[in-house]
Amino acid sequence: MKRVTAYAPGSTSNLGPGFDCLGVAITGMGDRVTAEGASAPGVRVRAVSDARIPVEAGRNTAALAAAEVLRRAGAGAIGVEIEILKGLPLAGGLGGSAASAVAGAVAANGLLGRPLGDEAILECAIEAEAVVAGRHPDNAAPSLLGGAILVLGVQPLRYVRLTVHPSLRLVFATPAYGVETAKAREVLPKTVGRQEAVGQASALAGLVIGLERGDGELVRRSMIDRIAEPRRIPLYPGYAEAREAALATGAFGTAVSGAGPTLLAVTDEAGAKAVSRAVDSAYRQLGHPARIHVARVDEQGARLT
Amino acid sequence: MKRVTAYAPGSTSNLGPGFDCLGVAITGMGDRVTAEGASAPGVRVRAVSDARIPVEAGRNTAALAAAEVLRRAGAGAIGVEIEILKGLPLAGGLGGSAASAVAGAVAANGLLGRPLGDEAILECAIEAEAVVAGRHPDNAAPSLLGGAILVLGVQPLRYVRLTVHPSLRLVFATPAYGVETAKAREVLPKTVGRQEAVGQASALAGLVIGLERGDGELVRRSMIDRIAEPRRIPLYPGYAEAREAALATGAFGTAVSGAGPTLLAVTDEAGAKAVSRAVDSAYRQLGHPARIHVARVDEQGARLT
Repeated sequence: MKRVTAYAPGSTSNLGPGFDCLGVAITGMGDRVTAEGASAPGVRVRAVSDARIPVEAGRNTAALAAAEVLRRAGAGAIGVEIEILKGLPLAGGLGGSAASAVAGAVAANGLLGRPLGDEAILECAIEAEAVVAGRHPDNAAPSLLGGAILVLGVQPLRYVRLTVHPSLRLVFATPAYGVETAKAREVLPKTVGRQEAVGQASALAGLVIGLERGDGELVRRSMIDRIAEPRRIPLYPGYAEAREAALATGAFGTAVSGAGPTLLAVTDEAGAKAVSRAVDSAYRQLGHPARIHVARVDEQGARLT
Repeated sequence: MKRVTAYAPGSTSNLGPGFDCLGVAITGMGDRVTAEGASAPGVRVRAVSDARIPVEAGRNTAALAAAEVLRRAGAGAIGVEIEILKGLPLAGGLGGSAASAVAGAVAANGLLGRPLGDEAILECAIEAEAVVAGRHPDNAAPSLLGGAILVLGVQPLRYVRLTVHPSLRLVFATPAYGVETAKAREVLPKTVGRQEAVGQASALAGLVIGLERGDGELVRRSMIDRIAEPRRIPLYPGYAEAREAALATGAFGTAVSGAGPTLLAVTDEAGAKAVSRAVDSAYRQLGHPARIHVARVDEQGARLT
């Protein structure tokens, strides 16, 4: 049995009003999983680039996803050892656990000669992530398929791929402190006002049209989350100030990426440098230096390398 | 002073998940307002084609909108008499009061030599409707501007025009019984569950993309209102059965048009006839014969004729 490596891009979910239903794969940051045949059946984690990630196969999303691929492919008797190279931050809000799961599933599928198609691979990754973080396909779907994915239903899974105008750029600023997804979900309200719900819906519809058209003014008017972000802001020191700095330098809109703390600013090619500097400076001045990354949409998604 | 006539198309608002924020102008049904100079200042209603519509200028949306045009144009000393020819049903959910307001505003503006632009005319129509039915621009905006309009904010008014694929057809069935908008708003919930709100947002985003692409399957999966329609169904005898009949004959989706009772079914050119027959038959069998109308999107909006 040969040795294969899969790459899965990071992703940003929510984008403000797309809370819990919109995710976009990003260029330049992702996780890699290498899978190799082994004599003893089952999946074992041989190495992880970050010591904070559990190596027990039952708590590791890459291993869980690989094991699920084996099970669905009827290859339960086969042994696989995996190595995980994290390119995404832990607890950063850039879809790291989903990317590891997707890369694990794609690598295992590649090792077996690709018995499963995209839909089945996606189910394996989502089920693996569900063990660790709940069933939220808005990161796994774009990480596997690339592009921007709107999730219409979770069970059964329904989604549609959206078009994002190639002029747009996504600026990310990831402060060093982490935020646990579970904590970020605790503060969510159980109910929202009817007018907030209507506002969220119209904002998301405006946002997807704005992203498709590359219409900065429409993105600016639409990129407002009325459900999660107002309650979560206290969890992210520096976000409010960095957001102001981004908007003041021409960003079309900002959002907390996933469960945070990463800030996402949407801008265009001309604005990317100024926005990057502004958010970098804002976080630094507040004593929360952040890692800056400028991305486009990764239209390709996960792949064997 | 000459005599001018304005036509304003009817419109369907909500379309399911676009509750309170999406409206579409429709071909083939609308209201007409004729305006003529008069000696005494102010706006008077000379004739209305439907005796149930109040002729007092303070309770008539066409007269209120015309008077607001006079005021904004600095023509308060001018006298105008109007005649209203209703093509839209009263309390049918096809944007009749908005169309009368828009036609009244456009006619008065035409009589004055068009001093006001679209934005100001729209404000006049919305303010006129607000006196009678509350501030809901999702009918007045498409009636004036044509096309599909997504309302992003009410005060200040913010909206964006959407594209609807020309292959789509809108089948309307209007039972004879009326529904008062005020009653249909009474049953609305003050709050909704967070997951309902997320579902509403993703559904609306999916719907606007589906309408743009003419993607029937996406419209089918998206045209689900989680906020208003579940509570309003009891107000509309026959709707549930007619909806089933429409879907069984290939309609992509159905919704209550505006505050009802009109049923809207979205289909394509090939499906329009079968869907029309199915809903017609369903309402008839239940003892609620309905007026059937097949429309396209009116991309032109209100005009002088």
